[in-house]
Amino acid sequence: MELDLETFSDRDWEEPTDADPVRFAMVGLGWWTREQAIPAVEDADHCTTTVLVSSTTEKADDVAAGLDGVEATLTYEEYADGAATEQYDAVYVCTPNGRHRDHVEPAADHGKAVLCEKPLEATVEDARALVDACQAAGVPLMVAYRLQTEPTARRARELIQGGAIGDVVSILGHMSDTMLAFADETTWRLDPELSGGTTVNDIGIYPLNTTRFVLGEDPQAVYARTESEQPEYEGTDEHAAFQLEFPGGRLASCTVTHSAKLASTLRFVGTEGELNIDGLFFPNTRKVLRVSGPDIEGEYRPEPVDQMREEFDYFANRLQRGLDPEPDGEHGLVDMRAIRALYESAETGRRVELG
Amino acid sequence: MELDLETFSDRDWEEPTDADPVRFAMVGLGWWTREQAIPAVEDADHCTTTVLVSSTTEKADDVAAGLDGVEATLTYEEYADGAATEQYDAVYVCTPNGRHRDHVEPAADHGKAVLCEKPLEATVEDARALVDACQAAGVPLMVAYRLQTEPTARRARELIQGGAIGDVVSILGHMSDTMLAFADETTWRLDPELSGGTTVNDIGIYPLNTTRFVLGEDPQAVYARTESEQPEYEGTDEHAAFQLEFPGGRLASCTVTHSAKLASTLRFVGTEGELNIDGLFFPNTRKVLRVSGPDIEGEYRPEPVDQMREEFDYFANRLQRGLDPEPDGEHGLVDMRAIRALYESAETGRRVELG
Repeated sequence: MELDLETFSDRDWEEPTDADPVRFAMVGLGWWTREQAIPAVEDADHCTTTVLVSSTTEKADDVAAGLDGVEATLTYEEYADGAATEQYDAVYVCTPNGRHRDHVEPAADHGKAVLCEKPLEATVEDARALVDACQAAGVPLMVAYRLQTEPTARRARELIQGGAIGDVVSILGHMSDTMLAFADETTWRLDPELSGGTTVNDIGIYPLNTTRFVLGEDPQAVYARTESEQPEYEGTDEHAAFQLEFPGGRLASCTVTHSAKLASTLRFVGTEGELNIDGLFFPNTRKVLRVSGPDIEGEYRPEPVDQMREEFDYFANRLQRGLDPEPDGEHGLVDMRAIRALYESAETGRRVELG
Repeated sequence: MELDLETFSDRDWEEPTDADPVRFAMVGLGWWTREQAIPAVEDADHCTTTVLVSSTTEKADDVAAGLDGVEATLTYEEYADGAATEQYDAVYVCTPNGRHRDHVEPAADHGKAVLCEKPLEATVEDARALVDACQAAGVPLMVAYRLQTEPTARRARELIQGGAIGDVVSILGHMSDTMLAFADETTWRLDPELSGGTTVNDIGIYPLNTTRFVLGEDPQAVYARTESEQPEYEGTDEHAAFQLEFPGGRLASCTVTHSAKLASTLRFVGTEGELNIDGLFFPNTRKVLRVSGPDIEGEYRPEPVDQMREEFDYFANRLQRGLDPEPDGEHGLVDMRAIRALYESAETGRRVELG
């Protein structure tokens, strides 16, 4: 078995079509949308940004000033009321988690496909409502787990599901950053009402969801411990360690913190080898995949790809082909329930089983 | 800051003396003593093997046949009764955990220094009694944590306690092997009465103790989940994931399994960098230390050393210099209490605080 670095980053999901590019309305113009999503779409093959939606027209106009091809700038109210629906085919919702439902439901009403940031909402109930709205309207809903179109994560999934390290037994994951360094990002993330929780919710979801993706399985029970040391984090979680129990006795142990150096690792140990990826969870960093198994042994340092561009192009290419994009809302709800259970566990000091 | 590979494996603890080599009685002649401890002492500078103790004289004689310098072969009873006490200065106790007390108490009675394998005993109570016996007799007792004289772990401790990665926030550890492949080793390890527990006890102690050593701190609370999939493990633990809470909100997440490919990693993430060691926990494998901090950045692959030789020479050199060796019995008792709490947690599904 060999990993071909020449084709490592190829898009195994892509098929060319004659369809027009998918036109996006960007809903929420915080730094992630401005610095990551919009540039990714500018660089994308299958989509384009045509509408910008924000709290005020001024803010949307400011962002539009630096962009080609924007046909409308709207307030959230105008967007909800159905303005400019001829100018876009799909929406990308990237607002505080607790506002996702407010912005997804109008998209469903207008018959637009939805790419919604993760976690789906601040509560399981609102996430459920948002998913139901899309299902009722028959619009495709994809949750923006950018790791699921990350070539390194996809190659890891292929290797592991192909038995490259035998049966997986143990999983270790870590993700950290220094959130307070991004001042305009911190306010809503530190407010559990708007965010649904801080560190477990915000970055714990990366090892949680990526492990689900790589294994193709969902956790059955969880445990978490959270800590808050700095005063800014009072009432929410700054550091956490958590466990996920997968079927067959597979156990995942993870740590996450919003107050340490940028770091990211995901390791799978199996009956016949191990596979480790450093740098996986960040959008534009070098990924290093090391795998050691009976038929494969090596260290791979593929050229980094723009994870957001891959995600947008995947979503758009699926729509062009008339196919539902994945991961869907039901997939996202599994994480919502797991995160709720993790916080319940942190509160009670007890293991929590998932239904 | 730089790690000098030329001196990486130097013995920072060693001082030459005029004293004679320390003469060891090897108590318990299982494969670890025969294949690891005795060859290590043959290769050592400050000690020698002069007495062999086993269940029968025949077994001890068989082992003696391949060795130079053995002056006496004893049964456990003869050893306990004080035979050949002129022929050795110290004992190395490497029997099933639940027999350590039986073999340490006679050494204390005979005024001999003790190097006792870890964990100290099968129960906290027997471990406490063993430590008390050595203290009452005034004999030095060191617990055989070979990682504490492992050059890579010592350099990691220096770097971390010297602030190379800022303040540590998260720790990830993993250790795995395939215990059932070592048939004559498995019987007592699968018997909780003799072992005190299987996987958490047997190999969980490596990330637990090494994290304590590197941080210079002890856990305040723990959580564990254990799993047993194969029938051989019924009634004991085959896989585990556990968490350790250290002071200042530092959280460690670990996985261990006796049923996966040999693998070992220990990672510290701090406010200003990270430090990771692969291969650390096994005696003769290649260690790879990667560190990234404001003043140091690099990957170190020092020549492996024989961990058991380093441990025996350290212990012997301390005795030659009239100094107590470390880690001592009280240090070992902290792990005993942590392991008991981990099993209690696994039983109840609850976080357990340490007194």
